[in-house]
Amino acid sequence: MIAKRLELLREELRREHLGAYIFNTSDPHNSEYTADRWKGREWISGFNGSAGTAVVTLKRAALWTDSRYFIAAEQQLKGTEFLLMKLKIDGTPTIAEWLGKELADNDSKEVGADGGTHTAADIEELRGELRQHGGLTLRTNFDVLQRIWKDRPAMPLNPIELQPTKLAGETTEQKLSRIRKALRDVHADGMLMSQLDDIAWTLNLRGSDVHCCPVFISHLLIGSQQTTLFVDERKLTTEVKSYLADLNITTRPYESAGEALQKWGEWNILIDPNEVSEALFRQVKAHEIIRKPSSVPIMKAVKNEAEQQGMRNAMLKDGIALVKWIRWLKPAVEAGGQTEISVSQKLEQLRSEQPLYRGLSFDTIAGYEEHGAIVHYEATPETDKPLEPHGLLLVDSGAQYQDGTTDITRTIALGPLTDEQRKVYTLVLKGHIDLQLLHFPDGASGTQLDAIARRPLWQAGLNYLHGTGHGVGAYLNVHEGPHQIRMEWKPTPLRKGMTVTDEPGIYLEGRFGVRTENVLLVQEAEETECGRFLRFETLTLCPIDTTPILPELLSQEEKDWLNQYHAMVYEKIAHHLNDDERLWLQEATRPL
Amino acid sequence: MIAKRLELLREELRREHLGAYIFNTSDPHNSEYTADRWKGREWISGFNGSAGTAVVTLKRAALWTDSRYFIAAEQQLKGTEFLLMKLKIDGTPTIAEWLGKELADNDSKEVGADGGTHTAADIEELRGELRQHGGLTLRTNFDVLQRIWKDRPAMPLNPIELQPTKLAGETTEQKLSRIRKALRDVHADGMLMSQLDDIAWTLNLRGSDVHCCPVFISHLLIGSQQTTLFVDERKLTTEVKSYLADLNITTRPYESAGEALQKWGEWNILIDPNEVSEALFRQVKAHEIIRKPSSVPIMKAVKNEAEQQGMRNAMLKDGIALVKWIRWLKPAVEAGGQTEISVSQKLEQLRSEQPLYRGLSFDTIAGYEEHGAIVHYEATPETDKPLEPHGLLLVDSGAQYQDGTTDITRTIALGPLTDEQRKVYTLVLKGHIDLQLLHFPDGASGTQLDAIARRPLWQAGLNYLHGTGHGVGAYLNVHEGPHQIRMEWKPTPLRKGMTVTDEPGIYLEGRFGVRTENVLLVQEAEETECGRFLRFETLTLCPIDTTPILPELLSQEEKDWLNQYHAMVYEKIAHHLNDDERLWLQEATRPL
Repeated sequence: MIAKRLELLREELRREHLGAYIFNTSDPHNSEYTADRWKGREWISGFNGSAGTAVVTLKRAALWTDSRYFIAAEQQLKGTEFLLMKLKIDGTPTIAEWLGKELADNDSKEVGADGGTHTAADIEELRGELRQHGGLTLRTNFDVLQRIWKDRPAMPLNPIELQPTKLAGETTEQKLSRIRKALRDVHADGMLMSQLDDIAWTLNLRGSDVHCCPVFISHLLIGSQQTTLFVDERKLTTEVKSYLADLNITTRPYESAGEALQKWGEWNILIDPNEVSEALFRQVKAHEIIRKPSSVPIMKAVKNEAEQQGMRNAMLKDGIALVKWIRWLKPAVEAGGQTEISVSQKLEQLRSEQPLYRGLSFDTIAGYEEHGAIVHYEATPETDKPLEPHGLLLVDSGAQYQDGTTDITRTIALGPLTDEQRKVYTLVLKGHIDLQLLHFPDGASGTQLDAIARRPLWQAGLNYLHGTGHGVGAYLNVHEGPHQIRMEWKPTPLRKGMTVTDEPGIYLEGRFGVRTENVLLVQEAEETECGRFLRFETLTLCPIDTTPILPELLSQEEKDWLNQYHAMVYEKIAHHLNDDERLWLQEATRPL
Repeated sequence: MIAKRLELLREELRREHLGAYIFNTSDPHNSEYTADRWKGREWISGFNGSAGTAVVTLKRAALWTDSRYFIAAEQQLKGTEFLLMKLKIDGTPTIAEWLGKELADNDSKEVGADGGTHTAADIEELRGELRQHGGLTLRTNFDVLQRIWKDRPAMPLNPIELQPTKLAGETTEQKLSRIRKALRDVHADGMLMSQLDDIAWTLNLRGSDVHCCPVFISHLLIGSQQTTLFVDERKLTTEVKSYLADLNITTRPYESAGEALQKWGEWNILIDPNEVSEALFRQVKAHEIIRKPSSVPIMKAVKNEAEQQGMRNAMLKDGIALVKWIRWLKPAVEAGGQTEISVSQKLEQLRSEQPLYRGLSFDTIAGYEEHGAIVHYEATPETDKPLEPHGLLLVDSGAQYQDGTTDITRTIALGPLTDEQRKVYTLVLKGHIDLQLLHFPDGASGTQLDAIARRPLWQAGLNYLHGTGHGVGAYLNVHEGPHQIRMEWKPTPLRKGMTVTDEPGIYLEGRFGVRTENVLLVQEAEETECGRFLRFETLTLCPIDTTPILPELLSQEEKDWLNQYHAMVYEKIAHHLNDDERLWLQEATRPL
């Protein structure tokens, strides 16, 4: 199947006199997760991870992805001609380096890539790198998938719904007014907003165009007076139409955003080249383009009181479902017949019984023993592993409720463990707790805190290659920026009101994986003569399996944290359970 | 005096139709510490800290400096018209913002700055910012100090000496060959080297043109075949002349570097715009300027075996001098008559008795009680404080030996302390020890490790605004890049063989300051399935005062580190002492 697709592609490359084509993982909105229509990289390569770039020349094909997907990609690319290129591993060439060599003797030195699914900044960088490597050129106005992907999915047409002000905590009028003030501060007359969750947040609207993400396909153009939403009108209910009309927001067809940028009537416009597609960017006709980051991601990242309360409500519901599920899990595994997929389905069912449930916030990762070492493992009928009453089951999952989004990882002992498993489990927990205990100066970025969660692991020669934490949306995307806690430099400071996950893990290929994740909320700690300090409030409510813990590896402070956390979990969840579940929870949250 | 200088300056500004002039703290070599000739910012403002920028308009004057110097600058600027502008404090305008406002109604919108003492990158950035703030322009080819600083010190003419290969560990031929290989790797035909310590390292030569820094004023032009040293010939001894001749290195007058850049005969040239002055940069005539960081700072930062051994030798000698000094200190203070300056002189004298001593590596900071809270305090006859047998004396000092450079801070209890002093002392020590105990992945940068030293302080609402660590030269500058351990992003990874200081501190204005500093050497720790890990070897050999410690605040691991460190200090130093000193050291290094 992949071979046939590559053949079709190469026919087009020859016809267009292109030496290669680059398929990235994005859409016209710089989305991390995209609607099916834009899953071109998956279609051409067969690799379905959430990050990766496929590059095909007339003779060869290669796929770049990061450490989360090394094992999965190797399995999925087997039998195709795609080579796996491991990002951030010594010796892996960049795409431009590889193409420079591959096309050295090629007739055409031109490379194709869809400017519609690359940001302007991506294309600019790629163009520069290709020029440096053998003087390759880049053509961005040709979407080869339109010719070769015959059954390409259509644009989604799901209806849009209102997010009540009671949950959003701020009206769209107030948000637009704050955005316009931020624009005036940098002397900008307006901006183009393309990121789907930014648009959903600004307009207090939600959709279901992207699997697990409550967003809708659109662009939003904000002028000094006028606001225009570019969206397929068929998605607008009467209620949403009249809501937008009341706000004086004009709607125009989705496809006409480029035309509007050509006719921009004000002096200048702010465009974030890291957000807006190259295809739209090159249509902007203004006296000046202000290339600056949009201020909306930071506004959205700082949750207001209503959003914070919504997140707490969502975490409580999620915790109830999780406790019921863990209570059910061990006996069910002992009874036999359970698999990674079956227990994931049970968890989804329990969550769906909670009020305001709207679906999963990402596909559940349930990896038993060696599958737990595949960071973004998703069980398929072919890989689905029967669960046995021993070893570790790593479950990373989350849900969308109308009042908040959840993301939690627990690693659960299904029975006896090895000494190595207990040690690794305890060290991961140490890092997880140490970060939650941290006080830190207001203004510190996540990069500056990252080592706190890693230190207990580093001391034992262990490390993980993924980030320690990311923002979580308020009934929006489960991965939210711009702040992150990770080793790579992310300058955005953590601010009071931001959500962030705390999810260290260890992955020992072929053996097992451990990760423990809570969602935290940044709160004020204290103000002293050395400045203002922040701390974390833990939002996630679910017991952490204490049976694998080697208590001698925890400090008293760490034990105290765990005991206090468990006391809080019991207090908040117990009265939502039946007697049997409550007794189990009492045992599960018993002090160390 | 300052008023008179400002008057002279303003006369010239009017004559040249300039609205303002900017005096930075550097020289034509982007030096942190400069020869007296380039201390123009100090001359015009009276502020003598190692970092700061003075800006003078026709009506006003202001000085920007960082937190290390807030207290000192306030004192030194008193009585002048200079306003103190505190960097990184909310509300402090940037220079461009301030000038934009100050010159809003001014006749001339042109600002002057000496392109000879600003790097090309600095000028480019400044030019852009000035343009953004009221459309100010920048003139860089006019050094106003030449007109108004009548008794400006001449170019230094101190003789240059050879650094023996036995101590350098690598010949200049080998170094030039490595540099040329690095140039070929980025397709560069040559480079201009301007940083004085890079030149001294490359040529295995040392000088004494800059107070405390064993460097000599010069530029080095490296072509694919030829190497040219631009230096005043009078500085070259017969020995050095014949050494350079043997290496086929041509010497040319210092002033002719610009001319050589105009006549550059090869295709392209690598210039690091963050290293080379704007005045030289604008003279480069090549088909292409490759604007990239020089690879020399990283080569120099990784110490070879001979340099490592030299550093260990230097640390031992420094430790002996320090132990003799601390042994002497407390009784001397009790006897009375000692001051910050007198005890600094005693320390300098003891160091000067050690073999291969060449001078201090920076002016000693000896701050008693509230003076300890002034981060870069240097006692003057006016501020010199008598020492009494109570409270804390913070001493940050270092020496140049021909085999290595030292940098050490100890905070010493001269007698009874307050509870607050003991608590802060112990928490600083915790952070200091935690960093030394750390194992970390090969490839981690200092920014990623910085929080480890700060965590115990943050938890108590304490913090310091300076960096945690910097590289230390091998008989070169005491501050060496490009790696650093600090909150600001410094991407250079810590690599095996690099030296780095570990110097957390706390400064409570008007009360006291605490800092504890050792020099560390990056070593290999282990290689596991999670990658290669590094650790630190402690080079500094000197007891840490245990009398202020609150033992209950230290973990067992921290206590073990301290006891092992003290056992090592005793073992290495004891047999170099007389009986009385040895008994004292035995007591000072007794396990907790």
